[in-house]
Amino acid sequence: MKNKVNRELPDEILKTTGYKPFESVEVKDLVIERVSAKVRQSVKPNKLVDSLEEVVLKTVKDGMTISFHHHFREGDYVFNKVMRIIIDHGFKDLRIAPSSLTNVMNDILVEAIEKGVVTNITSSGMRGTLGDVVSHGALKNPVIFRSHGGRARAIETGEIHIDVAFLGTPNADEMGNANGMDGKAPFGSLGYALMDAQYADTVVAITDSLVSYPNTPASIKQTQVDYVVKIDAVGNPDKIGAGATRFTKDPKELKIASMVNDVIVNSPYFKNGFSFQTGTGGAALAVTRFLRQSMIDHNVKATFGLGGITKPMVDLLEEGLVDKLMDVQDFDGGSAQSMHLNKNQQEIDASWYADPANKGAMVDKLDVVILSALEIDTKFNVNVMSGSDGVIRGAIGGHQDAGTAKLTIISAPLVRGRIATVVPDVTTVITPGDSIDVLVTEIGIAINPKRTDLLDKLSNIPGLPVYTIEELQKIAEEKLGKPEPLEFTDKVVALIEYRDGSLLDIIREVKD
Amino acid sequence: MKNKVNRELPDEILKTTGYKPFESVEVKDLVIERVSAKVRQSVKPNKLVDSLEEVVLKTVKDGMTISFHHHFREGDYVFNKVMRIIIDHGFKDLRIAPSSLTNVMNDILVEAIEKGVVTNITSSGMRGTLGDVVSHGALKNPVIFRSHGGRARAIETGEIHIDVAFLGTPNADEMGNANGMDGKAPFGSLGYALMDAQYADTVVAITDSLVSYPNTPASIKQTQVDYVVKIDAVGNPDKIGAGATRFTKDPKELKIASMVNDVIVNSPYFKNGFSFQTGTGGAALAVTRFLRQSMIDHNVKATFGLGGITKPMVDLLEEGLVDKLMDVQDFDGGSAQSMHLNKNQQEIDASWYADPANKGAMVDKLDVVILSALEIDTKFNVNVMSGSDGVIRGAIGGHQDAGTAKLTIISAPLVRGRIATVVPDVTTVITPGDSIDVLVTEIGIAINPKRTDLLDKLSNIPGLPVYTIEELQKIAEEKLGKPEPLEFTDKVVALIEYRDGSLLDIIREVKD
Repeated sequence: MKNKVNRELPDEILKTTGYKPFESVEVKDLVIERVSAKVRQSVKPNKLVDSLEEVVLKTVKDGMTISFHHHFREGDYVFNKVMRIIIDHGFKDLRIAPSSLTNVMNDILVEAIEKGVVTNITSSGMRGTLGDVVSHGALKNPVIFRSHGGRARAIETGEIHIDVAFLGTPNADEMGNANGMDGKAPFGSLGYALMDAQYADTVVAITDSLVSYPNTPASIKQTQVDYVVKIDAVGNPDKIGAGATRFTKDPKELKIASMVNDVIVNSPYFKNGFSFQTGTGGAALAVTRFLRQSMIDHNVKATFGLGGITKPMVDLLEEGLVDKLMDVQDFDGGSAQSMHLNKNQQEIDASWYADPANKGAMVDKLDVVILSALEIDTKFNVNVMSGSDGVIRGAIGGHQDAGTAKLTIISAPLVRGRIATVVPDVTTVITPGDSIDVLVTEIGIAINPKRTDLLDKLSNIPGLPVYTIEELQKIAEEKLGKPEPLEFTDKVVALIEYRDGSLLDIIREVKD
Repeated sequence: MKNKVNRELPDEILKTTGYKPFESVEVKDLVIERVSAKVRQSVKPNKLVDSLEEVVLKTVKDGMTISFHHHFREGDYVFNKVMRIIIDHGFKDLRIAPSSLTNVMNDILVEAIEKGVVTNITSSGMRGTLGDVVSHGALKNPVIFRSHGGRARAIETGEIHIDVAFLGTPNADEMGNANGMDGKAPFGSLGYALMDAQYADTVVAITDSLVSYPNTPASIKQTQVDYVVKIDAVGNPDKIGAGATRFTKDPKELKIASMVNDVIVNSPYFKNGFSFQTGTGGAALAVTRFLRQSMIDHNVKATFGLGGITKPMVDLLEEGLVDKLMDVQDFDGGSAQSMHLNKNQQEIDASWYADPANKGAMVDKLDVVILSALEIDTKFNVNVMSGSDGVIRGAIGGHQDAGTAKLTIISAPLVRGRIATVVPDVTTVITPGDSIDVLVTEIGIAINPKRTDLLDKLSNIPGLPVYTIEELQKIAEEKLGKPEPLEFTDKVVALIEYRDGSLLDIIREVKD
C-alpha cells in the first residue's frame, strides 16, 4: 500500500512490525500510558565500579537494548570504549538505541554488525562507512530512524525499552549526579541523555572527572544512576563542536542566508515575541547574524531561541534580543559554557523539546525554523537521510519535529556539484511536504502552494524572486540533466518513522 | 499480631489492607516497577482555563484521588479555594493525597469529611480541629500517614495514584512552566510538588502571576501540566514562613541546643566533609548557630546541608562553611529567595530527598540530623504524631527518613508543662528506636545502648551528663507522676506507614 506521502510500504513490513502508515503531520489526540523504569534500590555509600569492563559484565546480557547519547559528537570516546568491551566479550544480538550516531562510532559499529554483536539499531541517523554497510544490507534487521522527538516518544511509550544506558558526562560524583557543563570535555545541555537517565532500567554514568559529592547542578540525578565509572577521558573537547563555528564566506551560502532573512522579516511571524530555531553550520550562523541585524533594525525581540544552541544565539540572549534559550544541545563551546552562567538558558530534555506525545513540546510554540535538505521534491517533501546514490548519510535530528513550526524554511542550494537538490521525488521522505512552507535557494524561493498567505506577503520583495517549486526543479534538471534512476533490491534496510510513530518511508538495500 | 516495634496490628487491618508488618529500619533490596502518568497530548497554543471552577468541573470525578502540596504552609489559599468548589458541587468519596496538611486547611476539610466529600486521606500529618475529628472517628476510612520519602515511594509504586493534582505556584506561564521562587508569594523549592507534577495523570497549575512564555527556571514543566488557571492570590506571603525565624531566647531550649552541639562536635562525624539536617523552629535555628561557631572554631566544613532549608543554613553556604544546600523545601523567606541566586542551593524532589525505593536518596548520605519528639520511649521509639491525649496533632515529615542518618539526635525537653516527653511507651511509633542514637534533654543526654561507640565518645564531656533513657524516664515520672492510661475504642482511625511501606503502627479512635 501507499501512505499519504505516496510511499509504497510493503505489506510484509506493515504486518510484521505493526506500524500504522503515516497519515498526517497533524499529530493529535494521542493518549499515552507512559512506561517507567524498573528501579533497584541502592543504599550503597557510593556507586563506583573499578572499570568499564566490570560494569559491562555486570549489566549487559545478550539480546538487550543498550543506549548512548551523542552529545560528545565527533569527540566521543565512550561509545568506542564500551563497544570494544562488548565485542571482545562476544555478546550477541544487541539492540543499540543511541540518540544518534556520529562518524567516530562507525568503525566499531561496523565491526559489531559484522560479528553479529549488534543486530538492531534505532538512531536519529548514520553516515560514512556505517551508512554504507547498512545500505548494503549488512545489518540483520532494518534500522529504525526516529527524530529526536520521536525517540523521546518511543522511550516514553516503551517502544524503545532501554535495558542499560551508558552515559558519558564530563563530571559526576560518586552517586551519579552529573551535568554536561563542567569538566575537561564539556558539551553543555544533556538534553537527549536525560531521556535515557529517566527511563533506562540500568544507568551507568561514565566520567573522567569525579567531583565531590553532591555535584550540582545535577542534570542527571543520583536517583537515576546505578553505577559510576571513572575512565581516563570521556571525550576530545576539540571535536565536540559540531561543524562550523565561523560564519560562512561562501557567496552562495551568504546569498541564501540573506534571502532566508528576507523571508523571515517579510513574513507575518517577524514581530515582537516571535520564536525561532536556526540550527548549526556556517550558513545557519550566517542566518542568525542577518536575523540579529534585522531584529535591531526593526526593533523586534524574540521570546525564545530553540534547539541546538550556538554561540551567536547566546550573543542574542546576552544582547537582550532574545529572552530565553531553550537548550536541548549545544553546538559549540561558547553555548556549552554559558548554560550555567545564564539562568535564561534553560536545559530541556528531548521530550520537552519535541515529543508530540507529551503535554506540550517547545516545537509546538515555534514560529520560525530554518532547516536543511539533501533533496526536496515538487511536493515539498524533504530528504536529509539518503544520498543521490541511495546510501544512508544523514540524520533526522529535529527536522520532522521543528518542521511543525508556523514558518518552516528549507535553506538549500539548487544543485550541489553535479547533483540536484530540487528533484521530482525525494529518494527518502524524512519530513513531509505538508510541514514545509518555503524553500530558499540561491536563485530564489518557492512557496508551498497551500500557503497562499505567504505567496501574498513574499511576492514583489526586491531581491527575492519567487518561483514555483516545479520551476526550480526544471531549472536544476536543465542544468544537470536527468539522473539515472537508482536501483535497489527488495530488502528493506531501514524504516523511517514519523515523529508520531507511524511509518513514513522505508529504505531499500542499494544494488551496486 | 505484634510487629518488630511491639505494636499490636489487628489481623483485620492486615488482611483488608495487605500491609506487611514493619520489620526493620534497614530498608534494602527493594525492586520497584515504577508506574507513570497517563498522558494526554496537548497541542493547544495555551492551557489557560477561565476559572478554578471550570477546571475542577473538567477534571474531578467522584471517587478520584486529588492532591495538593503544602509549600505555602499556613499562607495557603489554593486548598481552600479548590475544596470550596468541590464541596459546593457535591462531589463524593474523594481521596485526598496532599504532601501534608496545615492548619489553614482544617476547617474546610472537616466540612468535606462531614459531608462525605472526602472519605480517604493520606498525608504527612494533620493538626488542630482536623486531627481532633479524625481522632474521634469522623473519617470513613483510616488516614494513611506517610513520611515525605514514603509518599514519594508510594507515588512511584502506584500505591498513591493521583488523578488530579492542584498545584499552586507563585508564577507560571500559559503552558504551565513554573517555579516556587518568583512572584507575590514565593516559597522556594517545589520539592514535594515535583512528585505530583511528574506522576499525576492530570496536573492543574494555579497561579496569581502569569508570566511571559517560556518561564524559567522551570521546576514544574509544561510537559507535565494540563491546565493553567490564574486566580487573584495563591497565598499569603506573610504566613508562608514556618515557625520561628529568630533564635530562641528560651534558656531551656538554648541549653538543649548547646548540648546538641556538644554531642555533634564530640561525635566521630564532626569532621571535614560531614553533612547535616537541622530542621526548623527557634531551637533548630539555635543549633545551627552553635554548629556554625563550632565549625569555625574547629575549622570544619560540611559538604551539604539537607532538608527544609532556613536562612541560617543559607548563611553557612554563603560563608563557605557548607558546600551545598540540598533543598526540598524552604522554611523562611531568606532561604526561598536565595535558591535561584546560588547554584549551590539545589532544588531536589521528595524522591531524591528521602525515597528509600530509588537509586539513592540524600538521607542515605546524611551524617547528622537533629529531630524533635512529642514523646520518646525507653526503646527510643519516637512519637511526633499523637498528643498525650491520644489526639492526632503532628506530622511525620522527614522524621523517619532523616532518622536513618549516621547520627540521629532527638532534641526534646524532658517534660512539657505537666506532660512527660520521655515515657515508658510512646502512644504512637513514628520513628523506630533503632533509628535513634542520642536523646538530648535539658538535664542531659541518653545514648541508644546499641551505640556503644557513642557511649565511649560522649561520656565524660564537661556539661554533658549522660543518663540511661530509663533514668530520664524515671526522672520525668518522678516529677509528674504516672499519667492515666489513654482509652481508645476498637476503631482504627489512622495507619502509620514506615517509609518502606510496611505497617509501623495504628491509631485508634479516642474514647472521651
